[in-house]
Amino acid sequence: MSPKAEAQLEKAEEAVRRANQEFYAAFESLDLPRMEAVWAHDDSVECVQPGWDLLLGWDDVRERWARVFANTSRARVALSAVRLRVEGTTGWVACTARVTTAFPEGFDEAVVQATNIFVLREGRWLLAAHHASVLPIAAEAESTVQ
Amino acid sequence: MSPKAEAQLEKAEEAVRRANQEFYAAFESLDLPRMEAVWAHDDSVECVQPGWDLLLGWDDVRERWARVFANTSRARVALSAVRLRVEGTTGWVACTARVTTAFPEGFDEAVVQATNIFVLREGRWLLAAHHASVLPIAAEAESTVQ
Repeated sequence: MSPKAEAQLEKAEEAVRRANQEFYAAFESLDLPRMEAVWAHDDSVECVQPGWDLLLGWDDVRERWARVFANTSRARVALSAVRLRVEGTTGWVACTARVTTAFPEGFDEAVVQATNIFVLREGRWLLAAHHASVLPIAAEAESTVQ
Repeated sequence: MSPKAEAQLEKAEEAVRRANQEFYAAFESLDLPRMEAVWAHDDSVECVQPGWDLLLGWDDVRERWARVFANTSRARVALSAVRLRVEGTTGWVACTARVTTAFPEGFDEAVVQATNIFVLREGRWLLAAHHASVLPIAAEAESTVQ
């Protein structure tokens, strides 16, 4: 790879990393317009969350976040083991997220493994697919809130 | 999109569909060389399977399949709800897989939701990331082997 191509790839990787961080920051903010700005708004976006079937298409994905935000008082996400790749106008991230959420009736903590796929559209990396699943072993080993 | 670009995209989508089918056919075959031919062999391939941490890099992914194959007598996979997208040299597939496996000591059935990411290398679509998680509701509703 030429030095120029390498610099471009590093720049794209940094942009994908920021887009991934912004996704979780939008989740923490419980602010729907902020979450809307993270995602591509088309019929083929995908969202898989622990214990739920695949959501397909922006309308369903948006509605899910609206419902999650309406039922959540507070959310904190700690990311670790973030790995990312960029290939042309696609970038994908594997990361571990410790998600703590508080509801009117209590709180929940989960450690999930996520695969997030971003596509480059008009200079912005937009989330096209989010697949998160619970890591039972890690969740058990780290069940105490630090 | 021009008719030519559209035809190229359709061709690429068909190739990604076949690559995804071959991944599950390789699983059913319990044939390690066949599974090896499905994957990219680099340090950044990723594999998340239900109840396990992320495996990173081809060596660990290969070892996992070798172990799975050594401990499985028979495997059958039925795919449904296959959705795929191609963006340049990246293709990704969302699909539901009903996986039935038989072991010396019994058998297991699971319905999983998978996200599979392929990259185009020298004319071949190779698996770069596989993320599968159990669908608890579907698994419960469809627990009888047909």
